[in-house]
Amino acid sequence: MSSRVNRRALLSAAPAAALPVALAAPAIAQTNPEVRWRLTSSFPRNTDILWGTAEAVAKRVGELTEGRFRIQAFPGGEIAPALAALDAVQSGSIECAHTASYYYIGKDPSLAFFTAVPFGLNARQNTAWLRYGGGQELMNEMMREYNAVAFPCGDTGAQMGGWFRREIRTVDDIKGLKFRITGLAGQVFQRMGATASVVPASDIYSSLERGTIDAAEFVGPHDDEKLGFARVAPNYYAPGFWEPGARLHLIANQRAYDALPAQYKAAIAVATAEADAEMVAKYDVANPLALRRLVASGAQLRFWSRPILEAAWRATNEVMDELAGKNERFKKILESHRRFRDDVYTWHRVSENSFDNFAFTASQTVR
Amino acid sequence: MSSRVNRRALLSAAPAAALPVALAAPAIAQTNPEVRWRLTSSFPRNTDILWGTAEAVAKRVGELTEGRFRIQAFPGGEIAPALAALDAVQSGSIECAHTASYYYIGKDPSLAFFTAVPFGLNARQNTAWLRYGGGQELMNEMMREYNAVAFPCGDTGAQMGGWFRREIRTVDDIKGLKFRITGLAGQVFQRMGATASVVPASDIYSSLERGTIDAAEFVGPHDDEKLGFARVAPNYYAPGFWEPGARLHLIANQRAYDALPAQYKAAIAVATAEADAEMVAKYDVANPLALRRLVASGAQLRFWSRPILEAAWRATNEVMDELAGKNERFKKILESHRRFRDDVYTWHRVSENSFDNFAFTASQTVR
Repeated sequence: MSSRVNRRALLSAAPAAALPVALAAPAIAQTNPEVRWRLTSSFPRNTDILWGTAEAVAKRVGELTEGRFRIQAFPGGEIAPALAALDAVQSGSIECAHTASYYYIGKDPSLAFFTAVPFGLNARQNTAWLRYGGGQELMNEMMREYNAVAFPCGDTGAQMGGWFRREIRTVDDIKGLKFRITGLAGQVFQRMGATASVVPASDIYSSLERGTIDAAEFVGPHDDEKLGFARVAPNYYAPGFWEPGARLHLIANQRAYDALPAQYKAAIAVATAEADAEMVAKYDVANPLALRRLVASGAQLRFWSRPILEAAWRATNEVMDELAGKNERFKKILESHRRFRDDVYTWHRVSENSFDNFAFTASQTVR
Repeated sequence: MSSRVNRRALLSAAPAAALPVALAAPAIAQTNPEVRWRLTSSFPRNTDILWGTAEAVAKRVGELTEGRFRIQAFPGGEIAPALAALDAVQSGSIECAHTASYYYIGKDPSLAFFTAVPFGLNARQNTAWLRYGGGQELMNEMMREYNAVAFPCGDTGAQMGGWFRREIRTVDDIKGLKFRITGLAGQVFQRMGATASVVPASDIYSSLERGTIDAAEFVGPHDDEKLGFARVAPNYYAPGFWEPGARLHLIANQRAYDALPAQYKAAIAVATAEADAEMVAKYDVANPLALRRLVASGAQLRFWSRPILEAAWRATNEVMDELAGKNERFKKILESHRRFRDDVYTWHRVSENSFDNFAFTASQTVR
């Protein structure tokens, strides 16, 4: 490696206090090609943090490649339907997507794990499972069937449990509830006696107002505030136990990715890693302020009772075990996920949780 | 911007199912120079996660620049003393360091905030404060006085509260305790009646064995296990309330950094951001396993009583307020930190903590 020689030359040529930063080097014929990718996001422009993450990745990749690798990001619906981003990547009509794998559980429920499953991993734990606990490998095993490769790219943190027209005091209050909630969480609530329904985001407000639905969940204070649900369904429950973190991914077409020079592949890996950490940080700044405004404007902040959480925990285990009984892949991923969860829950109960439990209330309680 | 033209050309030239990935481009004369930097770490090789983070950054920067920007990392003590890394960067004798700003509170106690302060921010909250709450700007205001610029680069997560020869049941048990603990945390324990002492890491074991000290804190299970403290001081307390997260930084000499091409600056920003998120993920995989082995080999896992935590909370406030009274900069940073802490504690108490409190124990308690 030439660096050894260069370092010696550098050290001998310059006194310690001088700064021999850049050695002049012969001009290198640059062979890296100009590459243009399109990115289809599953999110609209007005979800600024979700949508903005795709723009941040595109900008960073451009900076890292001196503009030779350009990704142009489009909001959901502009070049592909918001919830068909994976299909566009699979067919190769669009090179990459910023989306949530659990939008595609109609293809295989196993795709839920890489975004969120009820009583799953929080944002930090999910990062550890994906990066060092085998989770991302399990996802990419699946992604190969969609001609794709995926990179973790943003997390919302623990979401809220949604907006309810009436208080939910007991497990019985859930029976018959018409709840706008999708995916595996919908199956959990159905097992508890609710009717899970899918209502397009644009129709939620009027459906709540008319009473066509009794409740709806979306994300958290920052995103929820824009939709005005507090006026028609003011009971705002915590936590969204079915999304203790919700992880997004950048999903790239495998052939498009394979054709990239190594430097551009590194740029994608690292730009998504940066965006992955920054999304939840943005939410942690925005959500406290939005929650305060929501409460000031009439939202009633409430917490699920322990009996409701216990019923949901049991219903979740039943749903997950049934899916595992019908789907070998689901079973394999569930085993990895549960094993990791048991370990990290135990450790975080000792370290993080014992700190948080005291500190988060001490400023109000210790004098 | 040429990308518009290129995109049109690309779209018209290729059918949707084909993959027009790389457009041939004329060879560009590459003007980016070869740059060699040395990095001095504050950590020894045997702290594999702490030390390994510097190596990971160096490797990634190389990949992102096709080997033209090479950073060679050295463990603490090889090219600069472990706890004088900032001085080496300030003088320009070494281009960058991987270190913790709180090692330098002898210069100014304000430097503690960017690593950890007692009852401060946990890892995730600290990321948000640094990146979007003004924290990193406050650090870089200070770094200018050391001819330096800093990038968040790794977090340990909440640390353990250390190893104690005897049980610590009451606030009175802390009085007279000879505790190996440094920094602001040492001042907090002194205010509670302990004697805070500095013992080099290599002498801790024998000092505990002989009873020269009664207790010592280090990091967490993964790092602590290697030092064997369980044999001589088996009471292992949680949490390390003085380090609810401990953030490291890559600190670069300002002149060296300013001389870099924009692409290399972006490479540093993004490689450190990736490493920043990955360090705590590595700990979240390693710590649960190490904790289990420690308990199996005789460590007695214990938790601080609430009266002890409350006494420590009060002592912390006194220490922080006194420092703020003597140091305008400390006061300014403390105000930013406390304001952010109040907001994010409130939000995380609602969302993260309400989930964690139930879920972390449900698998043992809900049948």
